[in-house]
Amino acid sequence: MSSDPLYQQLADHYRHAIGARTLAPGDRMPSVRTLMATHGVSLSTALQACRQLEREGLLQARPRSGYFVCAPARPSITSIDEPTNLVADPAQYIGIHERISYVLARSQQESVKFNLGGASAAAGLYPIDALRNAARRALQRDPMLYGEAVKPRGHDPLRTALARLALAMRVQLSPDEILITHGCTEALQLALRAVANPGDVVAVESPTYYGLLQILESLGVRALEIPCSAQTGISLEALELAVRSYKDIKAVVAMPNLQNPLGSIMPDEQKATLVQWCEKNGIALIEDDCSSATADSDMALRAAKSWDRSGNVIYCSSLHKVLAPGMRLGWIAGGKWHARIEMLKFALSRPNEMLTQTAVAEFIVSGGYERHLRRLRAALKRQRDWMAQAVATSFPPGTKLSVPRGGMHLWVELPDGTSSEQVFERALQEGVYVAPGVIFSNSGRFEPCLRINCGSPRSAGLEEAVAIVAAVARKVAREAMPASGAAPVESAFRTTVA
Amino acid sequence: MSSDPLYQQLADHYRHAIGARTLAPGDRMPSVRTLMATHGVSLSTALQACRQLEREGLLQARPRSGYFVCAPARPSITSIDEPTNLVADPAQYIGIHERISYVLARSQQESVKFNLGGASAAAGLYPIDALRNAARRALQRDPMLYGEAVKPRGHDPLRTALARLALAMRVQLSPDEILITHGCTEALQLALRAVANPGDVVAVESPTYYGLLQILESLGVRALEIPCSAQTGISLEALELAVRSYKDIKAVVAMPNLQNPLGSIMPDEQKATLVQWCEKNGIALIEDDCSSATADSDMALRAAKSWDRSGNVIYCSSLHKVLAPGMRLGWIAGGKWHARIEMLKFALSRPNEMLTQTAVAEFIVSGGYERHLRRLRAALKRQRDWMAQAVATSFPPGTKLSVPRGGMHLWVELPDGTSSEQVFERALQEGVYVAPGVIFSNSGRFEPCLRINCGSPRSAGLEEAVAIVAAVARKVAREAMPASGAAPVESAFRTTVA
Repeated sequence: MSSDPLYQQLADHYRHAIGARTLAPGDRMPSVRTLMATHGVSLSTALQACRQLEREGLLQARPRSGYFVCAPARPSITSIDEPTNLVADPAQYIGIHERISYVLARSQQESVKFNLGGASAAAGLYPIDALRNAARRALQRDPMLYGEAVKPRGHDPLRTALARLALAMRVQLSPDEILITHGCTEALQLALRAVANPGDVVAVESPTYYGLLQILESLGVRALEIPCSAQTGISLEALELAVRSYKDIKAVVAMPNLQNPLGSIMPDEQKATLVQWCEKNGIALIEDDCSSATADSDMALRAAKSWDRSGNVIYCSSLHKVLAPGMRLGWIAGGKWHARIEMLKFALSRPNEMLTQTAVAEFIVSGGYERHLRRLRAALKRQRDWMAQAVATSFPPGTKLSVPRGGMHLWVELPDGTSSEQVFERALQEGVYVAPGVIFSNSGRFEPCLRINCGSPRSAGLEEAVAIVAAVARKVAREAMPASGAAPVESAFRTTVA
Repeated sequence: MSSDPLYQQLADHYRHAIGARTLAPGDRMPSVRTLMATHGVSLSTALQACRQLEREGLLQARPRSGYFVCAPARPSITSIDEPTNLVADPAQYIGIHERISYVLARSQQESVKFNLGGASAAAGLYPIDALRNAARRALQRDPMLYGEAVKPRGHDPLRTALARLALAMRVQLSPDEILITHGCTEALQLALRAVANPGDVVAVESPTYYGLLQILESLGVRALEIPCSAQTGISLEALELAVRSYKDIKAVVAMPNLQNPLGSIMPDEQKATLVQWCEKNGIALIEDDCSSATADSDMALRAAKSWDRSGNVIYCSSLHKVLAPGMRLGWIAGGKWHARIEMLKFALSRPNEMLTQTAVAEFIVSGGYERHLRRLRAALKRQRDWMAQAVATSFPPGTKLSVPRGGMHLWVELPDGTSSEQVFERALQEGVYVAPGVIFSNSGRFEPCLRINCGSPRSAGLEEAVAIVAAVARKVAREAMPASGAAPVESAFRTTVA
């Protein structure tokens, strides 16, 4: 049985019907009374479901006539395909950091006028004034702030506030089970060092967050890329296949909620299965949950950690994307490895500075964080919808697209044979940065893909930037067509992959 | 030829004469005119030398009679012995982190009323108000501070300011050769990861900073302990012996200026020799220079890095001890490994937050940092002298002591057979924390030693704390005497050392 609220289950049901064209554009949606009678739900549940679909742009309310199915917003876009269950050989990354660094360094050139490749939203979408005021008050309040050595583990009120926020994700943690880190990066670094040694194999989603690939390379840990669905996340079947071939997998690193870059959300049943499967196979599960607060629904997504009964799940999160990109504030709950992780953190960088922690704790306790998240979610949804529409109408025919139910990215698959490296290079020449698929995997499998950031509100500049990328993509796609006779383009990446 | 200023060389000369009792207490010091004639120096140089010795408590000015040699301030204290050139087997630390963590955790118990084991000065000795004001101004000035992702490498003006400060230590660096880190801990972590892999051997001073031993254990790097003199630092002879036995030493980690815990300062000639020796042997030199700004002299100590011509020296420093214990601000100049270190830092924790960097850059540029250091040095000198006197008059007979020319520690060697663990445990029971010798080495060689912090101004509380430690030390020393027939005391440390 699904653990989603009833109105969500109802909305899912009709979303599916609309997707399958059981209900076609222009059709009248069953009335609220019909829904109540058919499904045995309350008036409020029926209304909530309709409003949810309306917010998603699937239904339109007409005064005194009820809800109607909208014309599809993305006529020319197909969802990206489900992956096949291929498991690659575990790769010792040599050079992927260089490849990623090359891309990131180019993205920071002064000639870049628009960044569509970043992983945060526009600065104006964050509560920057409230946080600065909280920091000023903290400076005022504590004269000894800079004079005394920092406390281990982090600021107690912040750890308490985070433990309370975790309750919404159904995770039960005491503040003492939480350690504040320098962003999710340090949390992942700590988690991996706690469970794996150089040369060990760790399973990761494919495609995955490039920062994870950099951490793995820096640690000399070998990554086994497991196919990941844009709908349902990491493939459990592929994991099962992998464990038969590789006996020594030390950990699975996964983002069950709003996977980066795909945006997939694992169904709760699969999250539970993943947790149990890892435990049964003696493999640590490292859960990266740094984006789940940006899901469209105000109802929190459930964390995989919530099914953990044995401490086998290491939970990593951060406030970087959701609250303040300028703060490097992450946290980790290390389960049965927590003591070792505390030791490693002490040897890595000592505890974090206090000021940011104090300011953020105050902001969360005041209720400002939840209010901010509601605004951020609405803005991201609006921006993502607009961006998806823009991609749909302007990218080359044959482009496929994943439109996630949250977060700030679209994952775009250009027509077969189109090189995202070429799109990246040529768009850069015109001042726009998009993240090419090749940095999200060591496999070359995502060569025709782009991750596009939807963190900025619609503006003339953004429209122009998207138009530039679209024009470049159309050009590169045309050139890639066999008929065009274009010479193969040389790669800009000089990467050695062992 | 020494590169010390002339007045220092002159002061060294007479300091030695006084130490050797060539000039005994009560003797008249050669007059300033005699000094000028004998050594061919200027009036100002002769005067500076005398004043330097006066500041050190070795000379006393009597009106119209000139300078006289003072009665020795520490009648009952012998300097600690020079180490013998024994090189231990390289140790894979297993458990030393646990041993250190046990000590540190005890030091943070609420029952601790006085901390004589810490590594920073009293909060009031730091410019806490000026730094808070600088942080407030930075918050005011930059509305986007928390809204935008942090910049790589660190805040440009801070890196420029640090490059300028390094000039005084005769180190030539461009701002681009400097990377801001989370304290010296992260800098050392990065340096070690750049040059060594798990299982590799790294030479360290013995005794050494316990934080370094923790980092080595966390990395699985094997430490080869090289004897270190309380006067002249790491033994070059022992290093030469070590390299004959171990072909695969990857790095030497050393603190040439104000070694922690001994407080030794390597003579410049030896620093130069160390740099050349490391280069000749293809061994990286990792220089930890985080305390040199607390040396008694306003004339900066020269860094070993200043002799580096090939990029073989990785220079690590921090502002933690000298400017603000509550800021985790360190930096690294990685020489020929700098690009790799930038990569590792990105994968470790991303760049540091901006606020602290902005505030500190402003403070340094305003001249506030140099003014603060002059005050801090004078206070530390005063406090160290008082503490040495207090130890001299109250610790058990046979105690030896190193009194460094800077910093905030004394290194105390109790009479043979006295267990510093026992002193640590019993002093804790009376509310005072001192750092026992066993956390500064894996060898057990420093069992009778204590590191005592002199970072706090003299006060009734401090006097009481020292009296408590002295009484405990006398008691433990008496019990350790063979005649006493005391049963051997069980160790509080359950450490497995492979």
